[in-house]
Amino acid sequence: MQTISVQLPAAPPATYDVRIAPGLLDQLGDIARTVAPAPSCGIVSDANVAPHYLARATKALESAGFRVLSHIIPAGEQHKTLATASAVLDTFLNARVERATPIIALGGGVVGDLTGFVAASLLRGLPFIQVPTTLLAAVDASVGGKVGVDHATGKNLIGAFHQPRAVLTDIATFKTLPPREIRCGLAECIKHGIIQDASLFTFIEQNVQKILACDPAAMTELVARNVAIKARIVEQDPHEHGIRALLNLGHTFGHAIENTVGYEHIAHGEAVALGTVAAGRLAAAQNSLPREDLEKIIALLSAVGLPTSQKNLDIEKTFSTMFTDKNVRGGKLRLILPTKIGHAEIVTRVDESRIRAALQSLTT
Amino acid sequence: MQTISVQLPAAPPATYDVRIAPGLLDQLGDIARTVAPAPSCGIVSDANVAPHYLARATKALESAGFRVLSHIIPAGEQHKTLATASAVLDTFLNARVERATPIIALGGGVVGDLTGFVAASLLRGLPFIQVPTTLLAAVDASVGGKVGVDHATGKNLIGAFHQPRAVLTDIATFKTLPPREIRCGLAECIKHGIIQDASLFTFIEQNVQKILACDPAAMTELVARNVAIKARIVEQDPHEHGIRALLNLGHTFGHAIENTVGYEHIAHGEAVALGTVAAGRLAAAQNSLPREDLEKIIALLSAVGLPTSQKNLDIEKTFSTMFTDKNVRGGKLRLILPTKIGHAEIVTRVDESRIRAALQSLTT
Repeated sequence: MQTISVQLPAAPPATYDVRIAPGLLDQLGDIARTVAPAPSCGIVSDANVAPHYLARATKALESAGFRVLSHIIPAGEQHKTLATASAVLDTFLNARVERATPIIALGGGVVGDLTGFVAASLLRGLPFIQVPTTLLAAVDASVGGKVGVDHATGKNLIGAFHQPRAVLTDIATFKTLPPREIRCGLAECIKHGIIQDASLFTFIEQNVQKILACDPAAMTELVARNVAIKARIVEQDPHEHGIRALLNLGHTFGHAIENTVGYEHIAHGEAVALGTVAAGRLAAAQNSLPREDLEKIIALLSAVGLPTSQKNLDIEKTFSTMFTDKNVRGGKLRLILPTKIGHAEIVTRVDESRIRAALQSLTT
Repeated sequence: MQTISVQLPAAPPATYDVRIAPGLLDQLGDIARTVAPAPSCGIVSDANVAPHYLARATKALESAGFRVLSHIIPAGEQHKTLATASAVLDTFLNARVERATPIIALGGGVVGDLTGFVAASLLRGLPFIQVPTTLLAAVDASVGGKVGVDHATGKNLIGAFHQPRAVLTDIATFKTLPPREIRCGLAECIKHGIIQDASLFTFIEQNVQKILACDPAAMTELVARNVAIKARIVEQDPHEHGIRALLNLGHTFGHAIENTVGYEHIAHGEAVALGTVAAGRLAAAQNSLPREDLEKIIALLSAVGLPTSQKNLDIEKTFSTMFTDKNVRGGKLRLILPTKIGHAEIVTRVDESRIRAALQSLTT
């Protein structure tokens, strides 16, 4: 036997800036020109966001000298599929994108995740720029390089790690969001507070009304603090081998809940809120989370208008769906459980009856 | 404006072994168990290869304790599509693969490239093992981590970089190959000789009959030398920012030729042989390749039974298709041209009339 060892060098480090300010959309062209110069660019948006912001984004890109190829996908998580990604790939490949062509996501998390996967797959990886237009996307999907699409058997099961070259968050775009969308973004912000930063949790408690009203100063501060938390975690663990898993607090429950209830009936942030309550109850039942912290968590989720209970939840279906999550290893669930506000831990041995009880608690 | 800089660390280096020997297929289970232990594994093969080797591969994997999920794709480049990849993704996601589940490609380049892309995309990246059963896949696709599928507008335009955990080349599997497949593999071997290693070129000249007869010693030596050349190039440039482009000798012409002629009418290696002739003629016309080296190249391609001319080639269609290749930057073709047997260079300024003349020369 002949054996040849292939030794691949370490990939170089990557750095990118997340910019947060009202009115940033008009600087998209100049920033894209700086981070990914090319004759043309591709931009993906959805049917909700495009009527508000695509023309402005296109104008900014054209002013900076880009020929702009655009593709508008239908709005909604149910369209975050390989079939939709395939249609976007067709648009850009038919238009002869080259290796330097940046691909820009203008929209919420669905647009960002799907467009990032398209950018990762086009010619084995094109430069990617995120322009999140929802609070949820700004504090979650736009940082960290996790891109992908959903599958019938679960969310985000097809994807890649593909870091953006730049992220531009124009918080003025949040003003056209329905209040429900702001609340869903807050579910992730509260999660960040619980797992990592008690002072952020307090900041949200003290600024609920300003945040819900999209006050520019409060919103910029909120987004910046959350992005910083997520960035520090992702920097330590870009491919989720360890600490990054903490960001999944509420998500293994949440993914299963939204899959069971139906993506058309519950928003992602609402499912994460329910998942956070379930994880908190489970932790409290094990005496690893103080009761008063659990109550503060439930109170804050309620104060921002997020659901903390779900009548008629199919417990057994949700329970079995949890085992299709990416956080299953050797048939065992890996759950993130809070130990106090500001700290959480990864737990791999949880009694199945306690998981069922936590789900059951959501129905009352 | 608030700006948060995200600084991602360097990815760690990766090492894997390419093993070459007759009879290796029976060791697949033990090797998979070593590089990617898990309760189950996925294996993809095609309708040509599966009847010969899937049962043996499955037995080896089951003996090592794996539960084996298999998916057989239709044979042929025309099935190397996102639609086929989607069907394979469905199989493995419906079977609840986990992050540790290795995905194994058993077959030629189409199976390897498509399966690698599936492995890269499943849960954002599962361990991948290559078992090439053709000479072409053994010396080319199985080393280097380039995975992907074709698009209507060109080959390999949708994909990823995903390095295997191990490559097992059982050269005994080459014996069931049609002679045309061996010749196609030799096109890439001759290419390696031209761009990097004159002694390999001579080795092939001196062993044509043994190689075509799949003599175990000659074949093991041939594969090992070629894998070593490709490995050294890929190690220096895993993401094709520089020297790795040399491996594209004959491929920008070749991809356009096979696209124009039709994938059902010409094999990849045959198109690469024609592309190598065209690149050689272009280089000779510019006086950058000695005439006698051009003649030796054409003579060796002929000696192994590869085509060196293509009657009725649509020159203009082939020419314009060349500009849809991944090696176009700012509308300019980047071509690889030999300067002597054993050396080639990247050339970005080539007169379009010379490219047309090189294509024209193939039709006489």
